Amino acid sequence: MKNVRRPVIAVLIFALLGFNASLRSVWSQNNSTQLDGFTAAGSATERNWETEFRTIPEAASAREHLRRLTAQPHVAGTKEDYDTAIYVRDQMRSYGISSELKEYDVLLPYPRQPTIVELVAPRRERLALKEAVVPEDPSSSNPKIIPLFNGYSATGDVTAPLVYVNYGLPPDYDALKKVGVDVKGKIVLARYGNSFRGVKAKVAQDNGAVGLIIYSDPADDGYMQGDVFPKGPWRPATSAQRGSVQFLSTSPGDPLTPGTPAIPGTPRLKMEEATTLTRIPVQPISYGDARRLLEPLQGPLRPRGFQGGLPFAYHVGGTAGVRVHLKTDMDYQVRKIWNVISRIEGAEEKDRWVVMGNHRDAWTFGAVDPNSGTTAMLEAARAFGGLLKKGWQPRRTIVLCSWDGEEYGLLGSTEWVEENATELKQKAVVYLNVDVAVSGANFGAASVPSMWKLIRAATRDVPDPKTGKTVYQQWQDRTRDDSPDAELADAETGSDTKIAEARIGALGSGSDFTPFLQHLGIPSSDMGFGGDYGVYHSAYDDFYWMSHFGDPTFMYHVTAARLWGTIAMRLADSAGLPLDYRDYATQVREFFAESMKTARQRKLTSGIDEKQMNDAIDAFSSEAEKTERARQDAIAQPRAGARLQRINDALIAVERDLTDARGLRGRNWYTHQIYAPGTYTGYAAQPLPDFRQALEDRNTVNAGEALNRIVEALKRATETLRKARD
Amino acid sequence: MKNVRRPVIAVLIFALLGFNASLRSVWSQNNSTQLDGFTAAGSATERNWETEFRTIPEAASAREHLRRLTAQPHVAGTKEDYDTAIYVRDQMRSYGISSELKEYDVLLPYPRQPTIVELVAPRRERLALKEAVVPEDPSSSNPKIIPLFNGYSATGDVTAPLVYVNYGLPPDYDALKKVGVDVKGKIVLARYGNSFRGVKAKVAQDNGAVGLIIYSDPADDGYMQGDVFPKGPWRPATSAQRGSVQFLSTSPGDPLTPGTPAIPGTPRLKMEEATTLTRIPVQPISYGDARRLLEPLQGPLRPRGFQGGLPFAYHVGGTAGVRVHLKTDMDYQVRKIWNVISRIEGAEEKDRWVVMGNHRDAWTFGAVDPNSGTTAMLEAARAFGGLLKKGWQPRRTIVLCSWDGEEYGLLGSTEWVEENATELKQKAVVYLNVDVAVSGANFGAASVPSMWKLIRAATRDVPDPKTGKTVYQQWQDRTRDDSPDAELADAETGSDTKIAEARIGALGSGSDFTPFLQHLGIPSSDMGFGGDYGVYHSAYDDFYWMSHFGDPTFMYHVTAARLWGTIAMRLADSAGLPLDYRDYATQVREFFAESMKTARQRKLTSGIDEKQMNDAIDAFSSEAEKTERARQDAIAQPRAGARLQRINDALIAVERDLTDARGLRGRNWYTHQIYAPGTYTGYAAQPLPDFRQALEDRNTVNAGEALNRIVEALKRATETLRKARD
Repeated sequence: MKNVRRPVIAVLIFALLGFNASLRSVWSQNNSTQLDGFTAAGSATERNWETEFRTIPEAASAREHLRRLTAQPHVAGTKEDYDTAIYVRDQMRSYGISSELKEYDVLLPYPRQPTIVELVAPRRERLALKEAVVPEDPSSSNPKIIPLFNGYSATGDVTAPLVYVNYGLPPDYDALKKVGVDVKGKIVLARYGNSFRGVKAKVAQDNGAVGLIIYSDPADDGYMQGDVFPKGPWRPATSAQRGSVQFLSTSPGDPLTPGTPAIPGTPRLKMEEATTLTRIPVQPISYGDARRLLEPLQGPLRPRGFQGGLPFAYHVGGTAGVRVHLKTDMDYQVRKIWNVISRIEGAEEKDRWVVMGNHRDAWTFGAVDPNSGTTAMLEAARAFGGLLKKGWQPRRTIVLCSWDGEEYGLLGSTEWVEENATELKQKAVVYLNVDVAVSGANFGAASVPSMWKLIRAATRDVPDPKTGKTVYQQWQDRTRDDSPDAELADAETGSDTKIAEARIGALGSGSDFTPFLQHLGIPSSDMGFGGDYGVYHSAYDDFYWMSHFGDPTFMYHVTAARLWGTIAMRLADSAGLPLDYRDYATQVREFFAESMKTARQRKLTSGIDEKQMNDAIDAFSSEAEKTERARQDAIAQPRAGARLQRINDALIAVERDLTDARGLRGRNWYTHQIYAPGTYTGYAAQPLPDFRQALEDRNTVNAGEALNRIVEALKRATETLRKARD
Repeated sequence: MKNVRRPVIAVLIFALLGFNASLRSVWSQNNSTQLDGFTAAGSATERNWETEFRTIPEAASAREHLRRLTAQPHVAGTKEDYDTAIYVRDQMRSYGISSELKEYDVLLPYPRQPTIVELVAPRRERLALKEAVVPEDPSSSNPKIIPLFNGYSATGDVTAPLVYVNYGLPPDYDALKKVGVDVKGKIVLARYGNSFRGVKAKVAQDNGAVGLIIYSDPADDGYMQGDVFPKGPWRPATSAQRGSVQFLSTSPGDPLTPGTPAIPGTPRLKMEEATTLTRIPVQPISYGDARRLLEPLQGPLRPRGFQGGLPFAYHVGGTAGVRVHLKTDMDYQVRKIWNVISRIEGAEEKDRWVVMGNHRDAWTFGAVDPNSGTTAMLEAARAFGGLLKKGWQPRRTIVLCSWDGEEYGLLGSTEWVEENATELKQKAVVYLNVDVAVSGANFGAASVPSMWKLIRAATRDVPDPKTGKTVYQQWQDRTRDDSPDAELADAETGSDTKIAEARIGALGSGSDFTPFLQHLGIPSSDMGFGGDYGVYHSAYDDFYWMSHFGDPTFMYHVTAARLWGTIAMRLADSAGLPLDYRDYATQVREFFAESMKTARQRKLTSGIDEKQMNDAIDAFSSEAEKTERARQDAIAQPRAGARLQRINDALIAVERDLTDARGLRGRNWYTHQIYAPGTYTGYAAQPLPDFRQALEDRNTVNAGEALNRIVEALKRATETLRKARD
């Protein structure tokens, strides 16, 4: 406790005494720079509004939002979830922002009976499957905390020998085959990590396992990472990770209405027709419980990379001597969920929408995941409300979305996107996602490359509460600390020029940007402040945890609101949209070079027309360069309104061009040719997805075909840009 | 037990049924190649003798040697140690090889009283410091097993707060300073690994610690590596690592007679004058005991890289709340040790010595360390004896050395080398060390680069018992498996050409090659077969362990004897010595390039004459090339005897040229300019030692000076080669 409080107090004092001074110093420092997308005069006006905007979010207000939102567990579809929807709607309205609930009817299972996991041999022992009450943390004893279960697990009752499959991914099953262990007809025990959990379920099922138990190994988010809750922020022995095992890489959203909105009148699949549901029972357990199963395992010693952090040598099992009984009973029903859609009308381009979104439903209290994000959205909205009262109106419309059912599989966002697909394709400028806004102090972002400059620029205008530097500088410093070579170089020069721009990642999946970017082709981003966070999807992701570990001063919630709102304002207010496709071309070139390295190593180059692709990238790159010059030119000329409008429209349309209506191979809901979640990652992106997958599969015919589609997409994008300059 | 026995039986069957066939197939395959250093006729004769030689070593005989040698614990200077000397001498004599004991009087401490390590606060708890008796393993209850202690620990009695210092190396203390923890006046707890333990003692003392406790973390050689003894080969909870904490990087050998032989009449330092002894008490403990100290530690959470395998988050301590009492009582005496020196006279060049060596003393039973090596030497000697009876006599003299007191600090070898320095400088061709011959099936070697080709060639002529391939192939396959990139490349081609030659390492220290190579400049090598070995310097390094885990069939002992003897025979019998300095030049060039990379990164290039060094390497390289041609030429010409003799002498002298009598900075016992143990590694080599150390110290003046000495050495070596061709 003592170790934890020391830094907290330091930050608090800093926040109280020094922060406003620091905020102003950051502003004055950057005020001289003209904002991208604005004229000189427009930039000055925008800066004034932004300065005003960023003074409004407050720690006390953020704290109160989070306290209210996390007062009860609020799993999607429950009364408590509905209450949070009403809270968000009413807050929005109180800020002078119009806000409505939007309801969908989706397949939502809850556990009907507590799951049974028991060792049958070598002795009979039933596992607790219960997260301990922590006396210091009052909400940990809340009786409404949903039992440990995996969303979309099948109902099942199986007894079989147990096999430990490490992370439960294809290379792990390969390693098991090498030591002579087959999982067919067996129950597999996988540890969390390295992929979305639905992938583990699919791979287990595809390998013939009859059940899957997933546990949190202490090496991954328990004591090997640091002190465990309530002493520290990491996962304690009884805690387990709830979560969906939907086949997210196939498609997200309501499993019974893929591609169509889950509204009255939409035809629904039968459950057995759904392609995103596992047929085997799946259950999460804690490492305290997992130890009871793992320690008696016989069979071969774990292959390299399988050992976790429990204090014995892991074996893989598979022998008849260790058998497990797994019984799940899921109550599958079509239930209602509630998005909250709020809207600030644009003054000049009301049919151009800057969409912000965050989900609201949580597995338990969701202090980190997702209500730190909800809090940031509410504070940003409160600040927008403040500006509206002073006469600001955005040039374009800002839409603020509070999604429901994200945890089960991006349900609320996907259904809304599917319902409004036509309109969104016409009107959406970008989608700005925040899921977890705050689990610590370390900024991180992923986005399409056209938004990189915009995001970096905004982080240069927002101060970091802990260091007093800008968010950008803290972010870049951390990148340097994590890169030992660069550190070496820097030790001599004292300059930070050795590290290029702080890195923005690629979008995979696991949050609500997926329908926007990967189904419709809307430029998207995702961001937040991360830290030591070991209570993910557990009963301890609550107000106590946040106020002791994640953000005791709530200043990172404030910072997230400032940053997210600043980015939205620049997109909503700018004359010429600050989207730059030169970075996109560079990124695609890198993705392709990397893939070709693999192709060459594997001697899969035969069917690949490398030149055609490089030509397409070159053309795209050169057109992006011309577009950027034309855009700057049009912004500077007072009478170039129509020309600028054409360019703006093109900058939005380009991303749509990168989708292909035929969809990706075997998962045609996903249409984007550059970004998709990996088939075997779920969370992480697989850039140039069908091309890379073909290389993984060593299928040169597919690789050639996939590359052709990418080339076509780049050509469409190039042509769109070209035509905008005509 | 079951998992262990399966592979054992497989190997046994293979050994019984297939092995002789495989041995012959390896021979016939390679019989066509002419041996380096021999004429065509000479090569054929040599191959016949070698074939004969390699059939003689036998598993049953090896097993019996090991059984006899490990019947009792035999720490240096004890009666049981003397008994093993007599065994070796008598065996040698029984093979027809002359053999004598050679005695030295060296400083040897034994624990007088069992050490006390106890937690004083937050509660009083005395640690067990005792390795458990394992019922299956009869020798584990032997009352003569020496208690857990560190050789050359000081006697001391201290009580102080405890600080966990990770591996106890300089970067660890830097990391502690960053989190505000100072070790001055405290007892430090370090884990074994990443350096020779004497380095940990010196660094602890230099940082002001008053005591050092060293434990074996389960992440390093316990359950995180695999099953623990007696279920598996890794370290169990009560087991700890004995071992010397002499300042080996300063100099090895008797601490009271540095640079001179520890024989009657040699003046001796007082103990307080010795520069290689620690002044603080040092004690090894098990992870079972360490847990009692580590778990209550408070203070900051461990910095990155400090977490080990015990099941809680480590803290670094340093607070008054956790205090430890450490009391050691060492009985320091000058005691006798006994080398056994055996000799096979050379027929034509009896004053050219091919020296083989292995130590015999052990911390307990020494089945692996070192008596697997002693066993291999005895089997090689028995085979030499067999050849002698059939009329073989080596061209040069073979000297077989069984060293004593290696564990305390290379005492037997160092004193013998110091006593015979003048003669060795004239006569020694090479020194072939084997310390641990067998802890598993994986061949590994380190040597001066001039011996690389010779070692590789020999491994191509010896079959690997487990795979039936050659030792070389198994070694190369493993290199490929450990190198994922290469694996990728290879998966396509199926060829093994993607991986260059299997790698031979650089000689650091930690075994008896050090006085030969690094004090006198005698070309040296070290080799053995490694594997999963977690009982290093424990009570369980015994016959039971070896016959269950290390080498149940004893065929790797046989293989080690075959390989070591083959290399010795080629050096002893060849007309032209198979030493190739082209590889040496290449290696020095690589070492220099690597160092210059560091120098450039740190901007330390100012005082460094890079061109001068590159010129010296070029000249050496070109002269090595000419020498090699001259050598081949002289071998082929029947009447070139005198010329070949000059070349042979030069090939030996070159290595002496690489030493500098002024010695290395601050440790002048070490004279070799290319190879020395790292100041902060002990075991691992620090190539171009003074140059690299100066770069570490960021001292450009020292760097320039060190490089000048290396350049001088290379010039001497080049000149020696040049003159041999005159």
